Amino acid sequence: MTGALDRLDRLAPLPDELPEVELAARLPRGFRAGATRAGIKTSGALDLGVLTITGEAASAAATFTTNRVQAAPVRLSRANLEASGGRVAAVISTSGCANAATGAAGDRDQRDLADALAQVLGIATEQTLALSTGLIGSRLPIDGIKTALGRLVPDGLASTDAALATLAEQLRTTDSRAKMASVRVTLPAADGGVTLVTVSGVAKGVGMIHPRMATMLALVLTDAAVSPATLRAVLGPVVERTWNQLTVDGDTSTNDTVFLLASGAAGGAAVEQGSEAFAPFAAAVEAVARSLARQQAADGEGATTLLTCQVSGAKDGAQARAVAREVVGSSLVKAATHGHDPNWGRIVAAAGNATIAGAPVPLDPDRLAIAIAGVPVFEGEPLAFDRAALSRAMAGPEVLVRVDLGLGEGIGEAFGCDLTEQYVVENSAYST
Amino acid sequence: MTGALDRLDRLAPLPDELPEVELAARLPRGFRAGATRAGIKTSGALDLGVLTITGEAASAAATFTTNRVQAAPVRLSRANLEASGGRVAAVISTSGCANAATGAAGDRDQRDLADALAQVLGIATEQTLALSTGLIGSRLPIDGIKTALGRLVPDGLASTDAALATLAEQLRTTDSRAKMASVRVTLPAADGGVTLVTVSGVAKGVGMIHPRMATMLALVLTDAAVSPATLRAVLGPVVERTWNQLTVDGDTSTNDTVFLLASGAAGGAAVEQGSEAFAPFAAAVEAVARSLARQQAADGEGATTLLTCQVSGAKDGAQARAVAREVVGSSLVKAATHGHDPNWGRIVAAAGNATIAGAPVPLDPDRLAIAIAGVPVFEGEPLAFDRAALSRAMAGPEVLVRVDLGLGEGIGEAFGCDLTEQYVVENSAYST
Repeated sequence: MTGALDRLDRLAPLPDELPEVELAARLPRGFRAGATRAGIKTSGALDLGVLTITGEAASAAATFTTNRVQAAPVRLSRANLEASGGRVAAVISTSGCANAATGAAGDRDQRDLADALAQVLGIATEQTLALSTGLIGSRLPIDGIKTALGRLVPDGLASTDAALATLAEQLRTTDSRAKMASVRVTLPAADGGVTLVTVSGVAKGVGMIHPRMATMLALVLTDAAVSPATLRAVLGPVVERTWNQLTVDGDTSTNDTVFLLASGAAGGAAVEQGSEAFAPFAAAVEAVARSLARQQAADGEGATTLLTCQVSGAKDGAQARAVAREVVGSSLVKAATHGHDPNWGRIVAAAGNATIAGAPVPLDPDRLAIAIAGVPVFEGEPLAFDRAALSRAMAGPEVLVRVDLGLGEGIGEAFGCDLTEQYVVENSAYST
Repeated sequence: MTGALDRLDRLAPLPDELPEVELAARLPRGFRAGATRAGIKTSGALDLGVLTITGEAASAAATFTTNRVQAAPVRLSRANLEASGGRVAAVISTSGCANAATGAAGDRDQRDLADALAQVLGIATEQTLALSTGLIGSRLPIDGIKTALGRLVPDGLASTDAALATLAEQLRTTDSRAKMASVRVTLPAADGGVTLVTVSGVAKGVGMIHPRMATMLALVLTDAAVSPATLRAVLGPVVERTWNQLTVDGDTSTNDTVFLLASGAAGGAAVEQGSEAFAPFAAAVEAVARSLARQQAADGEGATTLLTCQVSGAKDGAQARAVAREVVGSSLVKAATHGHDPNWGRIVAAAGNATIAGAPVPLDPDRLAIAIAGVPVFEGEPLAFDRAALSRAMAGPEVLVRVDLGLGEGIGEAFGCDLTEQYVVENSAYST
């Protein structure tokens, strides 16, 4: 058999379609940000962050955890977004306490904080959103947070890149480093003019040392002029292809949230579906989201290797993404990656397990082709390859697994990390 | 709040409904068994097993892996069962090579072995079944196996308990011990008489050291007189409640197989749906299956603790089982179990993630109650408990997590194990 590499090479353009990303925080115009210490984290690190809008309000779209147990900040943000019609004036972010599984008292605490923030800014409570991450089941220390909030807003906020970077710092719990990504892109207008806009995101990665809970939070900001409806149209498919393709250990937290906010401060015509500016704007958001998701995967608890799986030849994109997710989510593939072991049998088995809503994804072993780190290892049957050389190639910071199903034109990718002894050590340590 | 223990105590009767199990191999009448060395395992351990029927044929039912990539022995067994109408005369079992992802050549190898077995026994090839476990992608050493088969059949086979125990030994790959369970039960007959029958099973557990692949194989035998259709009616629900509730790392292999064979050698009237004997027979099969599944979970790669989750108060049994599976399958819950950490927040989050065919299982955090090792820790809100004492109670060989959803009468359970550093070490070790 021949052609495995040819078929797998079809995948290469996938990430190239997106604009280049700078791994830095670049606060778009129209926002102010800042963070301080409010005594939530026992370590004394930054644990309270605030983002405000310099204009009247920003457009907003959001996606939330699918867990049936939803934390108080998730419930509050969801209700406020609906009440305000997606017009937001401030975001409050707390870390070190998830405010999840805290019952009616936790909901009251979260509303107290929203009221306090609204009062100091002179806005409606419905115009606020909330993010929170940390231990499940503990209460927020409301009095300390209110005192810190009084110090932070408005004098501690600034319209600088450094202020956004501070917010990225504040989001961290067990993250070994802050996650940030920015894209600058020129949007064409109907009148032939152009507008330079910034899309910049910060996120917290997938760290889960006891007593903290898995939490994935991301805040993506832009100064482009975009309506809430258009932001929602952009965010849904982007999350589908990026954060929904990210796995460290298959657990979905009670607090996962992505906010996409647009201040419009860059001026220019509004980005709308059907306008020439829509595609480049959506690509900029996707580039930022993809970069943050990859940073989160690479920083997964105990991880030493970013594990990416790119799938081609599926019947459609959803099936390609399902297979990619199954491969990077397999404990066996993750452990083999840690051991630099080109164990393609585990990849075959994982690909064959992929399902969508319980229904198996079509897969024909005779048409299947697999390459690890650029080396074809299977095409309907085992291929001969240099095991020792491939094992050495797998020792880098990223291992790329390519899978071609040979059934159609659907492509997709997923991001994960290796499974290490350190993951177990960090997540089984008993903290009092 | 009160009543958490009361609600959780509803679960206690669950396993008591089943007959008592003896952890031993008891070969039912009507079968002969044996095993030998055929050079498949490089260790020189037992790697070829054969089971034959002393009468003309046994009734058979089977369940197979749901993986889209199905090994050659699975494809052959499925076809033979259909061709023979569930009438089986012999089973051949190989270990050390899965004969999966081996293409058309692998299918030819498996058929060659079936033909050789049929020839020496003077039966039709369609009356044989096959089990295989081991490395994916490697070919069976056919010539060596045929030579060994000539030595083993018929002179190396015996109608003894020891012969069945030898078959359990032969199934092992990375299992630290052989798995076996037996029940003896008296079946009532319409004429007022009774028949003493044996149900006995052997299985291989969930070991996955490179280069071997996850494989779960089980062979359950009985001397009761049961038609293939009745066996299928028994096996489906039993597998649903036992082996489909077993997880070590969420990977489903290409070779998973459960065979249930009935020789009828005990005599007496046939067990039929609607007959008085059906329920006690089905309970005996379930008791054996449940015991084997628990033995497999306890022997999971690197495991030190059997993790059982029993769920009550679900809207139905399927929802209860889905929640139980999600809890014992959560990497975070597994790691916390390893650390003797009563981290109920991870249990809440896992329960909230349960889905059936992609649809979330209903769960209301306000009605949720959780107990770990008999200690209530959550009932709509966090409960006070002695953390240090509970942590000590979690240091035993089994940790029982009970979850009550407070929504209905559905109950279910699932079996898993803790996640340890040793799991990672064993599965990331690179073997040449």
